[in-house]
Amino acid sequence: MKKYVLKAGSTSLDSLVSIECDTPQVKPHEVLIRVHACSLNFRDQAVVTGNYFGGVLTEDTVPLSDGAGEVAAVGDEVTEFKVGDRVAGLFFQNWHDGPPNPTAGPALGAAGCDGMLAEYVCLPEAGVTKIPETLSYEEAATLPCAGVTAWNALMCGRRPIKAGDCVCVLGTGGVSMIGLGIAHAAGAHVVVTSSSDEKLERAKKLGAAAGVNYKSTPEWGPAVAAASNRGGADVVVEVGGAGTLAQSMQAVNFNGEIALIGVLTREGDTTPHPLMLKGASIRGIFVGNKAMAEDLAAAIDVNGMKPAIDKVFPYEDAAEAFRHQQTGAFGKVVIKI
Amino acid sequence: MKKYVLKAGSTSLDSLVSIECDTPQVKPHEVLIRVHACSLNFRDQAVVTGNYFGGVLTEDTVPLSDGAGEVAAVGDEVTEFKVGDRVAGLFFQNWHDGPPNPTAGPALGAAGCDGMLAEYVCLPEAGVTKIPETLSYEEAATLPCAGVTAWNALMCGRRPIKAGDCVCVLGTGGVSMIGLGIAHAAGAHVVVTSSSDEKLERAKKLGAAAGVNYKSTPEWGPAVAAASNRGGADVVVEVGGAGTLAQSMQAVNFNGEIALIGVLTREGDTTPHPLMLKGASIRGIFVGNKAMAEDLAAAIDVNGMKPAIDKVFPYEDAAEAFRHQQTGAFGKVVIKI
Amino acid sequence: MKKYVLKAGSTSLDSLVSIECDTPQVKPHEVLIRVHACSLNFRDQAVVTGNYFGGVLTEDTVPLSDGAGEVAAVGDEVTEFKVGDRVAGLFFQNWHDGPPNPTAGPALGAAGCDGMLAEYVCLPEAGVTKIPETLSYEEAATLPCAGVTAWNALMCGRRPIKAGDCVCVLGTGGVSMIGLGIAHAAGAHVVVTSSSDEKLERAKKLGAAAGVNYKSTPEWGPAVAAASNRGGADVVVEVGGAGTLAQSMQAVNFNGEIALIGVLTREGDTTPHPLMLKGASIRGIFVGNKAMAEDLAAAIDVNGMKPAIDKVFPYEDAAEAFRHQQTGAFGKVVIKI
Amino acid sequence: MKKYVLKAGSTSLDSLVSIECDTPQVKPHEVLIRVHACSLNFRDQAVVTGNYFGGVLTEDTVPLSDGAGEVAAVGDEVTEFKVGDRVAGLFFQNWHDGPPNPTAGPALGAAGCDGMLAEYVCLPEAGVTKIPETLSYEEAATLPCAGVTAWNALMCGRRPIKAGDCVCVLGTGGVSMIGLGIAHAAGAHVVVTSSSDEKLERAKKLGAAAGVNYKSTPEWGPAVAAASNRGGADVVVEVGGAGTLAQSMQAVNFNGEIALIGVLTREGDTTPHPLMLKGASIRGIFVGNKAMAEDLAAAIDVNGMKPAIDKVFPYEDAAEAFRHQQTGAFGKVVIKI
Repeated sequence: MKKYVLKAGSTSLDSLVSIECDTPQVKPHEVLIRVHACSLNFRDQAVVTGNYFGGVLTEDTVPLSDGAGEVAAVGDEVTEFKVGDRVAGLFFQNWHDGPPNPTAGPALGAAGCDGMLAEYVCLPEAGVTKIPETLSYEEAATLPCAGVTAWNALMCGRRPIKAGDCVCVLGTGGVSMIGLGIAHAAGAHVVVTSSSDEKLERAKKLGAAAGVNYKSTPEWGPAVAAASNRGGADVVVEVGGAGTLAQSMQAVNFNGEIALIGVLTREGDTTPHPLMLKGASIRGIFVGNKAMAEDLAAAIDVNGMKPAIDKVFPYEDAAEAFRHQQTGAFGKVVIKI
Repeated sequence: MKKYVLKAGSTSLDSLVSIECDTPQVKPHEVLIRVHACSLNFRDQAVVTGNYFGGVLTEDTVPLSDGAGEVAAVGDEVTEFKVGDRVAGLFFQNWHDGPPNPTAGPALGAAGCDGMLAEYVCLPEAGVTKIPETLSYEEAATLPCAGVTAWNALMCGRRPIKAGDCVCVLGTGGVSMIGLGIAHAAGAHVVVTSSSDEKLERAKKLGAAAGVNYKSTPEWGPAVAAASNRGGADVVVEVGGAGTLAQSMQAVNFNGEIALIGVLTREGDTTPHPLMLKGASIRGIFVGNKAMAEDLAAAIDVNGMKPAIDKVFPYEDAAEAFRHQQTGAFGKVVIKI
Repeated sequence: MKKYVLKAGSTSLDSLVSIECDTPQVKPHEVLIRVHACSLNFRDQAVVTGNYFGGVLTEDTVPLSDGAGEVAAVGDEVTEFKVGDRVAGLFFQNWHDGPPNPTAGPALGAAGCDGMLAEYVCLPEAGVTKIPETLSYEEAATLPCAGVTAWNALMCGRRPIKAGDCVCVLGTGGVSMIGLGIAHAAGAHVVVTSSSDEKLERAKKLGAAAGVNYKSTPEWGPAVAAASNRGGADVVVEVGGAGTLAQSMQAVNFNGEIALIGVLTREGDTTPHPLMLKGASIRGIFVGNKAMAEDLAAAIDVNGMKPAIDKVFPYEDAAEAFRHQQTGAFGKVVIKI
Repeated sequence: MKKYVLKAGSTSLDSLVSIECDTPQVKPHEVLIRVHACSLNFRDQAVVTGNYFGGVLTEDTVPLSDGAGEVAAVGDEVTEFKVGDRVAGLFFQNWHDGPPNPTAGPALGAAGCDGMLAEYVCLPEAGVTKIPETLSYEEAATLPCAGVTAWNALMCGRRPIKAGDCVCVLGTGGVSMIGLGIAHAAGAHVVVTSSSDEKLERAKKLGAAAGVNYKSTPEWGPAVAAASNRGGADVVVEVGGAGTLAQSMQAVNFNGEIALIGVLTREGDTTPHPLMLKGASIRGIFVGNKAMAEDLAAAIDVNGMKPAIDKVFPYEDAAEAFRHQQTGAFGKVVIKI
């Protein structure tokens, strides 16, 4: 079998190489997955450059948290899966249900835990979930990080969204476009921001009620509030980090919540004091658990949602896929295996 | 102006008479509404026959809790409304927000509080709410009791519904058909029960994913669970009362909730013990508050929901409207004024 | 080592016998526990008589879900525990966190799963939890079923109790007395019912604010509401089953919740319609998960709570302990090993 | 009667003057209160100096939001209160229940709304609440702003505190010391910070489990986490503003919440990114509603809590009371009238 590894010490895509190796053997509690597709997230770029948690990799590591495939073999004590099941790995291998906690990890495709960019992958049963029946492997491969993150942001906070709520998603990347799909399916009024009017039009075709161009409207926070069906956004899917948080606090409604996701943008400071007058909140989001993945799958199957895929690359062009994502994709970048 | 009253001592529709009276004058905190349409609920039948809370009416009383119209005049201290606003009365005149409590009443159109079946009605500002912009007066007149009840059942319990959840609504009456609309807009998989295959087909056209005929399938509880997209219904909109509760407890999912609404069906006993194995719950619903009415209006406007109306009667045929509802309407029965 | 088994076909305590056997060997994910104390619950009586889920036992089975001891050995892949840790088994072996679900089981000490009445017990790591630091083994042995049940009832429903809330616990058995301890520590006003004025006095010494004798006051529901610090009990810990539910619905407050626990009392019917006027609910409780056990342990250690123990029996007198519990213990019956 | 006013244009205590005026007459929905005691909050200092919302006062205004007294007269339409009732004004005059919203105001004792520092005050019935039965007027006067704020912070967020949780309160001012009382009554492990070891000792006598001196331990965030009974504080009562938020994010536990209160400290920026890894949140707090005030009163009466009062000043020394508060009081500063 083939798999990609990032060589120890990786600081650029030059360290990404495909190698041959033996197909792994399942232990009693493990599942062997024949991976059919993977997708990229911005955290994967940070792993490549040594800027993710744990810093520069100290061992060769298979990259990518997100991959979907079919079960090729199961260990003797596996009860939840059987050969042929359509599955994906979970971003956090030990977070089944309940609130965030310090024992959720490891996370696939980063220091200490090989990821999914391989023909075959062995994972503990507890680190695997079924994918939606209505999605292809390419589509399902977009969910483990970006999809679960968006679900957590919208559905698992202080005020899960309800029909009639206003949701604001920042930009048209993977998390935001899946967030648009979820929020639209849930009956929300969705406002999208982008630097491109063309992308805003595409977002409207996917269900957005309104768009705000943050280039032509630098004070886009009040513009989002004005484009809301009420006083502002009940949930803001905040993927932009410190540079956008001040505007997000303008966009958010009384009693609203800003779901803070942009884990890689750490520079820049922002006082959270505007939260007080509105009784609003900021909640840190770090992907999510298996129960969220299952709920997301149910929502997708019931509503026929399709994750937006920007482009699909063949296995051989994995490095190219990484480079393409950096250019600002509309939705997700996928690698077919 | 004209209005209907139920004469004191009413036990049948013979006591329903239209009379002439002076148009009321607003006090400082009051709003005068020119009523354009009313709708009927089963509780209104009970008021007629003297079987509602408080028993037989001891004073002449204007019937019906549900009416929509436009503001014709406002008192000096009114701040929320102005002449021309499109509004409806709130079922409970003093329940603005927060949980159920003993000071929510009085309820419109029953003992001690005149209702909406009149050309003009004066209500305290706090007892009035704006109607959805996208609905006609006839459509908006269906919401104050049945619509808010359905919203409370689905959105305000221990586990408000999320996209991908399963919802079961019993029958095709007013509450259930508005519940179907809300649940469908919220991305849920909706299962409807009915004694009529034809009504089940109509419900599917409104968004139901599946139907179960409880006449041909008397053990319809397990059939609903089987028609679910998961182990059962996450919320059951239980309008049937004791006669159906045992089956509802078969239909409900682990961790699910049965929203108990059939306030008029008191005979018959049912042990709630099946709840225990599933960790499920039964929650008593008694309409809802102003915040729920506002949230429902937002959900309607965002999603373009249209309440199912069975038939519209002119003012003169009010008694006929009451009789028609008793025959088992699909959705709501409306009186135009 | 020694252990008790209930012989296959057991319908009475005559089937409870102590036998000699080899000490079990840990598998990679397992923990070997040297059990120091066990406690009894009413469900254990039902297991003896063949009236628990699954009916009469078809295999010899070690009884009792509740036992505490120290870790004597750990498997190679165990990460959470080490030799010497003070631990207890979890009632449900596979319910770590999150809501009730169909894959929580098996439950210790019933059909298909040996329990804790043995000198040594092997359990999967996932089925074990640490006990409170401030409790003895005898005290800690009271928690896995009764303690977690009480915690779930009070803290994990639609309205977890807050300081100033009113809680009603029925009777002075194991669940109710631990419930009293939790509610008192949480700052609630606790009302206890009993058929014995003497037991009510003992409950007051443990923190109860008021007591109602249901023998001298058969309509004890309104009496509990009158003894409340507000309109009624915000949570009722309902261990009595159908025979008491009608009164519990009188005792419960607007927006309150009845935590339904008496899993063994299935006869008798009760209409839940009184819930509607109050917007109250009934929630089925079936013990709880590991996260609840951990939260309970924290609450005990912070507040110095001591579970009420009625009597401690030596290992040899296990059958006597079962008989003693049937007489109506105040708090828990414990077996020391 | 006498009352204090801050003269229009006030920027210092020189503008605080006592004047004689007529006792006000109640309108139909109003209550006349004979004020017995008031208390000070830091926001009152900002009103004096013209730094509160709305800036420098444009009209003479009676200061102070917090005052308690007895009902001296009621308007014809008042239903909730009668002469002789022991009451306090609500900080927000129009926020009865439910989440934060833009129509909660006005707030007593600031621009556009006279406050409580007067012998007699007329308030709308909806802006008044009963005080705890077990408190004196001086004690009850500490609650409307500081007490309700602390209750909201601890009990009304994403994860209301439970027995066994860890709570951190910053400093020993009014909000923090009432927060300590509430958290202790609710069974929490409370960690207090202060620049004074002596104040930490006093806080321990009021129930704190641990104290951290932020002067001798500038990196007090990790020290609070280490003094926790678990991984950190489940709720941080953050009254310090931007200068302390970075440390609060070190102190907070996984899934914890920082209740952000220091409305007057706006300078200084802090990136909220540490929230993400822990799934923690920051929630803006702006006092609270009537339901919170009622729940707080119940918690006080059930648990015999006594708000910490630093010093009581006579009416004549109101200016002195303002000056004393600036020096750093332990608990609340009260003016007796």
